[in-house]
Amino acid sequence: MGVGVIGYGYWGPNLVRNFAEQVAARVVAVSDLSVERLTQVHARYPKVKLTTDFREVLCDADVDAVIVATPVSSHFDIGMRALQAGKHVLITKPITADSEQAMQLIEAAEQRGLVLMVDHTFIYTGAVQTIKQMVESGNLGQLYYYDSTRVNLGLFQRDVNVLWDLAVHDLAIMDYVLGRRPVAVAATGAAHVPGHHVNLAYLTCYFEGSLITHHHVNWLAPLKIRRTLIGGARQMIVYDDLEPSEKVKVYDKGVTLADAQGALESMIGYRTGDMWAPQLSLTEGLRVEAQHFLECVTHRRQPLTDGPCGLRVISVLEAAARSLAGRGQPVELTDESPRATATESLGGVSESA
Amino acid sequence: MGVGVIGYGYWGPNLVRNFAEQVAARVVAVSDLSVERLTQVHARYPKVKLTTDFREVLCDADVDAVIVATPVSSHFDIGMRALQAGKHVLITKPITADSEQAMQLIEAAEQRGLVLMVDHTFIYTGAVQTIKQMVESGNLGQLYYYDSTRVNLGLFQRDVNVLWDLAVHDLAIMDYVLGRRPVAVAATGAAHVPGHHVNLAYLTCYFEGSLITHHHVNWLAPLKIRRTLIGGARQMIVYDDLEPSEKVKVYDKGVTLADAQGALESMIGYRTGDMWAPQLSLTEGLRVEAQHFLECVTHRRQPLTDGPCGLRVISVLEAAARSLAGRGQPVELTDESPRATATESLGGVSESA
Amino acid sequence: MGVGVIGYGYWGPNLVRNFAEQVAARVVAVSDLSVERLTQVHARYPKVKLTTDFREVLCDADVDAVIVATPVSSHFDIGMRALQAGKHVLITKPITADSEQAMQLIEAAEQRGLVLMVDHTFIYTGAVQTIKQMVESGNLGQLYYYDSTRVNLGLFQRDVNVLWDLAVHDLAIMDYVLGRRPVAVAATGAAHVPGHHVNLAYLTCYFEGSLITHHHVNWLAPLKIRRTLIGGARQMIVYDDLEPSEKVKVYDKGVTLADAQGALESMIGYRTGDMWAPQLSLTEGLRVEAQHFLECVTHRRQPLTDGPCGLRVISVLEAAARSLAGRGQPVELTDESPRATATESLGGVSESA
Amino acid sequence: MGVGVIGYGYWGPNLVRNFAEQVAARVVAVSDLSVERLTQVHARYPKVKLTTDFREVLCDADVDAVIVATPVSSHFDIGMRALQAGKHVLITKPITADSEQAMQLIEAAEQRGLVLMVDHTFIYTGAVQTIKQMVESGNLGQLYYYDSTRVNLGLFQRDVNVLWDLAVHDLAIMDYVLGRRPVAVAATGAAHVPGHHVNLAYLTCYFEGSLITHHHVNWLAPLKIRRTLIGGARQMIVYDDLEPSEKVKVYDKGVTLADAQGALESMIGYRTGDMWAPQLSLTEGLRVEAQHFLECVTHRRQPLTDGPCGLRVISVLEAAARSLAGRGQPVELTDESPRATATESLGGVSESA
Repeated sequence: MGVGVIGYGYWGPNLVRNFAEQVAARVVAVSDLSVERLTQVHARYPKVKLTTDFREVLCDADVDAVIVATPVSSHFDIGMRALQAGKHVLITKPITADSEQAMQLIEAAEQRGLVLMVDHTFIYTGAVQTIKQMVESGNLGQLYYYDSTRVNLGLFQRDVNVLWDLAVHDLAIMDYVLGRRPVAVAATGAAHVPGHHVNLAYLTCYFEGSLITHHHVNWLAPLKIRRTLIGGARQMIVYDDLEPSEKVKVYDKGVTLADAQGALESMIGYRTGDMWAPQLSLTEGLRVEAQHFLECVTHRRQPLTDGPCGLRVISVLEAAARSLAGRGQPVELTDESPRATATESLGGVSESA
Repeated sequence: MGVGVIGYGYWGPNLVRNFAEQVAARVVAVSDLSVERLTQVHARYPKVKLTTDFREVLCDADVDAVIVATPVSSHFDIGMRALQAGKHVLITKPITADSEQAMQLIEAAEQRGLVLMVDHTFIYTGAVQTIKQMVESGNLGQLYYYDSTRVNLGLFQRDVNVLWDLAVHDLAIMDYVLGRRPVAVAATGAAHVPGHHVNLAYLTCYFEGSLITHHHVNWLAPLKIRRTLIGGARQMIVYDDLEPSEKVKVYDKGVTLADAQGALESMIGYRTGDMWAPQLSLTEGLRVEAQHFLECVTHRRQPLTDGPCGLRVISVLEAAARSLAGRGQPVELTDESPRATATESLGGVSESA
Repeated sequence: MGVGVIGYGYWGPNLVRNFAEQVAARVVAVSDLSVERLTQVHARYPKVKLTTDFREVLCDADVDAVIVATPVSSHFDIGMRALQAGKHVLITKPITADSEQAMQLIEAAEQRGLVLMVDHTFIYTGAVQTIKQMVESGNLGQLYYYDSTRVNLGLFQRDVNVLWDLAVHDLAIMDYVLGRRPVAVAATGAAHVPGHHVNLAYLTCYFEGSLITHHHVNWLAPLKIRRTLIGGARQMIVYDDLEPSEKVKVYDKGVTLADAQGALESMIGYRTGDMWAPQLSLTEGLRVEAQHFLECVTHRRQPLTDGPCGLRVISVLEAAARSLAGRGQPVELTDESPRATATESLGGVSESA
Repeated sequence: MGVGVIGYGYWGPNLVRNFAEQVAARVVAVSDLSVERLTQVHARYPKVKLTTDFREVLCDADVDAVIVATPVSSHFDIGMRALQAGKHVLITKPITADSEQAMQLIEAAEQRGLVLMVDHTFIYTGAVQTIKQMVESGNLGQLYYYDSTRVNLGLFQRDVNVLWDLAVHDLAIMDYVLGRRPVAVAATGAAHVPGHHVNLAYLTCYFEGSLITHHHVNWLAPLKIRRTLIGGARQMIVYDDLEPSEKVKVYDKGVTLADAQGALESMIGYRTGDMWAPQLSLTEGLRVEAQHFLECVTHRRQPLTDGPCGLRVISVLEAAARSLAGRGQPVELTDESPRATATESLGGVSESA
């Protein structure tokens, strides 16, 4: 299978490397506006065709699938042209600049029977796969909360705010792990650097019942933190992506309720048990993802991180943007906002993965 | 100086111990509803008068100052009676169940020339004192944010929600360190245990300019976390209260702005420098606080954590309660707000949460 | 049961507190050379008889058992007098200043049918109890090594070097966990402060087979470290006493050996699996120990940390002292060695170091 | 300058990459016994000449300098042939299999006026450079100890034991930082895997005065630890190579001595002050090293890690091997063992670096 890559900036080299290492694929062409970057491609992959005009990649007959790794604002235009040229498409996150664009891409791919996938790379790591299995097993009991922190110093983005840059990872993981959609969103934050977007934000998602998620993102933190707490009635998970080996820890902890005789309120007790850190696959997430994309294209399967998945994340970000502008004013998420999430079959997809 | 302590539950023993160790004071009497607890007092302090009726403490002529360490709902009643009996008063946090009560205590103390102090104990630790000095020195540059996390498993409170129990610490520290009052508050959260208050909450405070603070509190976390990030334009602070010795770390980090020629937006650069952990006083905060209270009484001085300080914290908590009930709906804090929130009772707040 | 405590210095208050909290016991008398310390005893335990002459404790008819918490040099003399007075004896670590003294105490206790116990307090913690069970279960496979680090800044001891102060803890734990005696000892170290003992030392114990243990102790370290690694063929344990809750972690890790066809050497593979942190009893070790001592006295049982246990630790320390003086010259431990090391006094050891 | 690389196993790819990125050099040829590995070279560096016979590299007229990255046993033979062929030589650590071989290489290089350098890569990291400056500044006061731990699971080496594999790093750093040679060595350890070398070892080096160093290495540890403590009379350093950013921390801690009136021994006090983590250069050590090697060749300068430096490390390892065989029997290091450490000028070298 021939792969063309459009955009060789921050993330592009990782994409090219991982697809180049797949036996089932060949990186045919790479385009970028910078000749200097193309020179780097040539130094490492001397057989790859190079161009500063991405349209050459789209009309290359050797290219079966196109990977879009450009700034967000161009995702829709390039992605749509690629689909129209009959190419399968993998787009870096977030899938598009708004949900309307995402819906159009989804529709275009469906009409043509082409694979449309979004590069939510964490979904393909051993850590997130293990967490997903734990949550699905029901061992955690009723889910109470999902709380993520993703902060560090830099890199300020020019075209999007910190939610679109960092929270998109957590929203994608949350969407996958919980398998549920929020009903309302509230977000607060601040822009500290003149002429730049919001660089610090806090996002809360409300779900049916008492499940709540919260996502803290910051480009101006002195420390790098990548930590998620998932609380259930019976067990709780701590996922620390910076831990070298024990990234996922399961705590057998919680509260117990005893009916106090003659009392209206139940008495709370505390339960603490063992902690357990399961062995995780150490394969690079992007490597698993590249393989999954190629399999989906070969067998015309719906990817684990398909268009509707990218759309769901965008729709939360859009609601967050509105709430942010209103200092935390809550925004309801209606079923119509991200349409077409119907036919996805996560189970089938998981099997293939 | 004679000290009477009302309430010998979770925190009372620490108060009694620290006042008993002061040369300038003598613990004269302790009251508690539980005879069992009074027995414990007797075993350790055989000379202290014991009673199950706090009124006996209030009318004890040997008692110059009263320490109120009962549940929040009784703070106002006992505190007011103590002031009316001509005693100086130290009340555990939060000062009262609502801001109207706090204002009445402040007024009563002022009229009688008595000291009224709230037990915001962290203010008196070496860590917070050092942070205060750093912020006041201006070395951090313009303040950007203050972000605190205070989570662990338990202890669920019966009478107040997690904000009134845990965030009160962070609001007190923030009030002291920043020396500024927020203009608006937004809060989200959830109650997971039937018949109990909100146990997980996120509170954002907006200030004039772009300063923002955020406070994460949780009674249902698998880990104990006590960490605050303070971001300034030139330096940033990490305050981790669980670190055995280096609780405060200062990072010489930030962004730099360079005017790009012909560009509308400034270019961002990143600056990383040394990290520094100043030596901190290891004296127990409560010991410093006890001494400070005695000095304020002796010299009729306004304490560092006086009534208005307790009131400011309460007024933020009240605004948070209203925002919480509205899924993050922002609530403005006017200068009058502490006075204007009269009808908001702690009970009502809990119900809505 | 009446308990008398001799010595109320660094550790004495913990002993008095824990025995005072036992229902089966009553602290009858405390002796110390310092009147100031005795005043502290009185403030907390007003009913306890006080004296600066320990002989009064020994001849007190209300005293059934004596706890010796004085400097090491006086352990033998006081312990022997206590046994001769018909009292059961608990002695702080190390049991005596040399093995000859320990043997005499053991014999004296045996002859009189009295309990002689040494205060190796870590043995009674949830962490060490759990580790012991794991090692005994055989799950670790063949034992390879036991490696402990116990370093911090201070407290320099006047009468003993750092091995006698800190390594004694690790040797006691090792003796209990492994249930085996070393056959040879090698030790290196240095004395950095003029007029003071060796403050940094490294001790290696050799066992039958390939089992080896190593103990690193230091009074002059910038960090506090309390970490032990125990390596087995199938599992490995990390015991970090400074971890607030997960003090013991079990790693399902090791190497695998495959016979390479036609090769003399086997091929090594690496196996990594889950990590598991069992829930530990949080009861203070000294509390468990106090209860155990009382039970042993009541039922005339041999304590877990009996005289021979204290002697085994001493005999390793004596061999280490000789090796230390010879820059790591190995010293064999024979079965008789505890008896054969008679002329080696603690004072002489320190001098040589 | 033309560079030839012999050996493309574990470390070879890093060497090739770093020399390929130097503007002043060109990787001309690579040899390895494995055709598969040479294919990997070709994929990345299509212009490099490939061969399975290292002698072709040695007689290549385009090759000015040869990098020897083969197993230790062949270092001498290949290194000597390279020098005889008039090539400058950089050899991976340890420089040779014994000190006699190292001395012959040093002599051969001197006679021909060629550069001989050993790849002690940690010397060229920002962390070690910063530590060196601190020690040289004298701020630490009198040096007391240097204590390193370098343990993890794997990789068992076939041809050397764990000291020759891991401790060689620490001995090289210690040699550079302290600038002094030990007078005696004691080592203990064990071999746990049948048919394999010692996999766990403890090495002590004694110096003139009371300075002592200790090095703990282990191939069979459940955790990866890379930590060094350096203790001085006034300051202490903790160097943790696994810390993402604050690898070097300086503690303003120590003991103070006060002459107690009329007492023979001085009284010890403890001093604790600030902790400080200096900003470190983040440039890859091997990149700095590659540049340094090229500069030394161009200007015929003695490298920072020259032949005598490699020899000094070897001589300690040889003494350790003898001590290890005698269960810690100490081995004296005489001046004759590693000759010719005279003319090296560290200052001049540092300037160029």
